[in-house]
Amino acid sequence: MTTTGVPQPSLPSRRSHVPAFEVMRITDEIARRRAAGHNVVSLCAGEPGAMPAPGTLKAAGYTGPLGTTPLREAIAGHYRAWHGVEVDPGTVAVTTGSSGAFQLVFLTLFDPGDRVALASPGYPAYRNILTALGVEVVEIPTGPETRYQPTPELLDAVVASGGPLAGLIIASPANPTGTMLSRAELQALVTWCDAQGTRLISDEIYHGITFPGAGDPDPRGVSARELSREAIVINSFSKYWGMTGWRLGWALLPESLVPAFEALASNFALSPPAPAQELALQAFAPETYAKRDAIVDDFARARTLILEAAPSLNWGQAAPSDGAFYYYSELGEAQLEQYGDSVKYAQALLEGADVAVVPGVDFDPVAGHRAVRLSYAAGERAVTEALERILKFQG
Amino acid sequence: MTTTGVPQPSLPSRRSHVPAFEVMRITDEIARRRAAGHNVVSLCAGEPGAMPAPGTLKAAGYTGPLGTTPLREAIAGHYRAWHGVEVDPGTVAVTTGSSGAFQLVFLTLFDPGDRVALASPGYPAYRNILTALGVEVVEIPTGPETRYQPTPELLDAVVASGGPLAGLIIASPANPTGTMLSRAELQALVTWCDAQGTRLISDEIYHGITFPGAGDPDPRGVSARELSREAIVINSFSKYWGMTGWRLGWALLPESLVPAFEALASNFALSPPAPAQELALQAFAPETYAKRDAIVDDFARARTLILEAAPSLNWGQAAPSDGAFYYYSELGEAQLEQYGDSVKYAQALLEGADVAVVPGVDFDPVAGHRAVRLSYAAGERAVTEALERILKFQG
Repeated sequence: MTTTGVPQPSLPSRRSHVPAFEVMRITDEIARRRAAGHNVVSLCAGEPGAMPAPGTLKAAGYTGPLGTTPLREAIAGHYRAWHGVEVDPGTVAVTTGSSGAFQLVFLTLFDPGDRVALASPGYPAYRNILTALGVEVVEIPTGPETRYQPTPELLDAVVASGGPLAGLIIASPANPTGTMLSRAELQALVTWCDAQGTRLISDEIYHGITFPGAGDPDPRGVSARELSREAIVINSFSKYWGMTGWRLGWALLPESLVPAFEALASNFALSPPAPAQELALQAFAPETYAKRDAIVDDFARARTLILEAAPSLNWGQAAPSDGAFYYYSELGEAQLEQYGDSVKYAQALLEGADVAVVPGVDFDPVAGHRAVRLSYAAGERAVTEALERILKFQG
Repeated sequence: MTTTGVPQPSLPSRRSHVPAFEVMRITDEIARRRAAGHNVVSLCAGEPGAMPAPGTLKAAGYTGPLGTTPLREAIAGHYRAWHGVEVDPGTVAVTTGSSGAFQLVFLTLFDPGDRVALASPGYPAYRNILTALGVEVVEIPTGPETRYQPTPELLDAVVASGGPLAGLIIASPANPTGTMLSRAELQALVTWCDAQGTRLISDEIYHGITFPGAGDPDPRGVSARELSREAIVINSFSKYWGMTGWRLGWALLPESLVPAFEALASNFALSPPAPAQELALQAFAPETYAKRDAIVDDFARARTLILEAAPSLNWGQAAPSDGAFYYYSELGEAQLEQYGDSVKYAQALLEGADVAVVPGVDFDPVAGHRAVRLSYAAGERAVTEALERILKFQG
């Protein structure tokens, strides 16, 4: 990242200049020679090749640091199917969850002292990973007037007051608010970042879990990859595909960043989990999409229950729940007066009614003490029961 | 880490002071309430609870950031069985491979500019992860005179010339050399670190893959945990248990570092892979130990083949291959003269004889261009074939 007037968004960070793990490069060369018909004997790998792990029928060894070729190709195919864009599988990096992608992307892009902006409320791990890596987090307070999303105007103000931004992290649908960026809004942010030499990182982990109105031209959500080859897209098998515990995600990288990212991945992670990669190949089958869409329909019903009950909760301003499975709302004056803040309200609700909700402090250090996040991922039945208990608890 | 005269090895780094992800704390509280018989409805988790991932019969959700309680208890039991020490399961952190442990341990312990020493030749990811995190890597060149391991004398010299060390990373058995520290040698390093306020990180990933002589009092290797509660031990299911692709490891932490480590883990990783954690519970059954020991016996036979063939290879000085499955040797003058260095030798061997070995440059930036690492993890047959081809190739 340069801080002069000339945007140079293709440069990896200084700290990403570490050598790749040579063993992993040789492993690739062995695979190529074997594919070409050579009978290669490898005394190269630091892994026992002979026997599967205890309790398994099949050995699962390291894969390449960016994942298996079939999975990288399948992910590229997903962008063709959902977003109508061609993605070079060589620029797809399979990672250990989106968590694995975030840390490697941040290391690839940012040096200590770089300034990176994000909307508040937002996913707390962005802020905390960046902080631990010495990157300056620039919080952009957002509210209902911008649907809790950053805008070029808000970014201009941040640059005017504190200087240029090395990066901007956006999420659509967002956690905790569930709000989404329209194509035009996302395009405006892409254009702003291009003009400023600011690297755009688009967290699309909740793509597919969306509740579009009739005739919405982008029912799955718009991928930043549709609008820019310089944006980094991060996604995961955790949410739409329900594979949280398997820890598998991916990043789409600009071509110029692939070598630096791969070198870091080969040192920090070696490879993403292999059994999860094999399983994930099934994620892109038509019958899997159909099954997962049925689950999204259940989320939609649970969401409707909350929206319908909202007036009777007597809470404050809520974010429009466009996607993900979150309902983020301020508490009402009555609850804030009685309990003091949302942390104490959530604690009292758990102890008094055995309903667990998350206070907003995780997501918004400034105003989160007034808000709570409800996840309706647990489905219709749990939401019905929880709403009844909350209403009874509030009296 | 302090740089004054008073050792304060219990302090976590400044950068590790990030808040834990509150959702994960509430998840724990929900589990406690449910265990106490409460019927808790959770609108807390950001994961679809209803349905398993595509192709699986069973849902696998996030676990706690430090892993499941049964696995943490089972790992503690392993230290009782192999090393005769009591480990509090609350100080066991399950991680995404030893890779996941290294990055979190380094972040927990070290701030940018801190000096951390390690032996060269050594595992390159130590050096590269530390560098990317802004930590100063202090390489200690080692050779046959100390069995390629650091000693208090070598450490004294490093401190005298460059100042105090925040940390020391050791590995026994080591990668790439396979050499091990005796109990007395390890004790000397523990004592040195305690006196200096230097944090000792002991990489024990090859424990169990050892070739002890008759009557060796520590046939499995000595764990730093036997000698110190302030040392950090890192280990993995990858090597002895052959679970490389599953990406599962662990760290034993001093109690004072657990909160900082857990906060970082909850942001950087959320949780280690869940299916791997379930599988790993079988790792500590008597029949699993027996099966894995049989595989180590096969490594031993492959090792013997290499040691017996060594004189006919006409290579230079080799490290004593005490454990792991590595044979690390200088090439002979004949090969170095003909090919220039070990990178070119390895490339020629791969192209000319389809045998893959790793040049030492990965492991030793100074002298590695003269050395190669042979892994005999592939077993007796592969090693026999490889040795025949190498001898024929060298003519």
